[in-house]
Amino acid sequence: MTLRGRKKGETVPQGVVVRLPVYFRYLAELEAAGAERISSAQLGEALDFTAAQIRSDLSYFGSFGQQGYGYNVTDLLDQVKQILGITRDYSIVLVGAGNLGKAIGSYEWFRDEGFQIKAIFDIDPHLIGNYHVGCIIRPLDELTAYLAENPTDIGIIATPKDAGQSVCDLLVEGGVGSIWNFSPTHLNVPDEVIVEDMHLTDSLLRLVFRLNEQNLGQEQA
Amino acid sequence: MTLRGRKKGETVPQGVVVRLPVYFRYLAELEAAGAERISSAQLGEALDFTAAQIRSDLSYFGSFGQQGYGYNVTDLLDQVKQILGITRDYSIVLVGAGNLGKAIGSYEWFRDEGFQIKAIFDIDPHLIGNYHVGCIIRPLDELTAYLAENPTDIGIIATPKDAGQSVCDLLVEGGVGSIWNFSPTHLNVPDEVIVEDMHLTDSLLRLVFRLNEQNLGQEQA
Repeated sequence: MTLRGRKKGETVPQGVVVRLPVYFRYLAELEAAGAERISSAQLGEALDFTAAQIRSDLSYFGSFGQQGYGYNVTDLLDQVKQILGITRDYSIVLVGAGNLGKAIGSYEWFRDEGFQIKAIFDIDPHLIGNYHVGCIIRPLDELTAYLAENPTDIGIIATPKDAGQSVCDLLVEGGVGSIWNFSPTHLNVPDEVIVEDMHLTDSLLRLVFRLNEQNLGQEQA
Repeated sequence: MTLRGRKKGETVPQGVVVRLPVYFRYLAELEAAGAERISSAQLGEALDFTAAQIRSDLSYFGSFGQQGYGYNVTDLLDQVKQILGITRDYSIVLVGAGNLGKAIGSYEWFRDEGFQIKAIFDIDPHLIGNYHVGCIIRPLDELTAYLAENPTDIGIIATPKDAGQSVCDLLVEGGVGSIWNFSPTHLNVPDEVIVEDMHLTDSLLRLVFRLNEQNLGQEQA
């Protein structure tokens, strides 16, 4: 993998990392709609970023825009994909096959972009042996043996809160270096393990906080 | 609602807003485990924040810690709840009763904290008329009439991408001021409407980006 214009090992600011998926989604939509080019001003208007911010973000990885022409949508999308690293396959296991696990497994975009779940685990005897998105649901106590045979990039934890840490420990011991955590608990992992949290709770609490803050502002006005 | 020590209308920095739910979850766990007090140093160690950051965050809303004693867990949790605004009920509607909508509706914490979904809507004739978490699933074309009769704080969008914006428009026209968006699309709303996005896509892309960045670093080392 080469990152045009980007020095290997250079750390990308968190703010840029957070915005990259937004570019990706929007550019993919543009390409699907047949758009051929876009200016940084148009991108900015669509995404609520300033044109200067967009030029700065994209130039971080190298300069692709042309004065008076803007960006070629397909080229820019390819570059964003390469920067994000979605140019290769990732092996994924999912632990937890309840409503949330099933939703993650069958998320439309997930399949479209080639992220394939290779194995699903649960402890519920009513779920074990059933199929979801083409995978048989296996008992959790087979996870360690599975990981020993099948090196895995990403482990998804979609268990209740109480099981989150113990499942995480099994994944980490099995050599999984990246955890996508949907269980509403703070996971303790070794420094080299990446955790990306999807706390539904936190997101709802942020929404409620902003809602109240707005109401306070209105009372004051 | 009063915010002890906090000036009305004063805007809280985004960084503090993002950390508040983390405090909330951890303090709720501590209280459930019977802990009576905690120091800022202990909080910091548990949550990977510096003690100084924690003191700064909490003092933003008023000072509750006592030298040599730390914080009373229950008092601190009550304060965090009050700051977050989870001291009253919120009326919620859910649009989209597929796997993801069902998962959100039955999310354990959601029910435990008193967030109740009052009505569920979908367009799928196979789902309409079924019950989920005690609500009948109604046809989407009844949403506007429902909102006219039932003022609603929060609308949850758990539809496929293509339906996200049109459902959002119906909610906003119906007076819903806060949108919790799970559909993988960028929503256009009036300035006064709050949108909190839960893009599974973006979260996974951030994870993959960090995974690749780590691999690049290792290749270089």
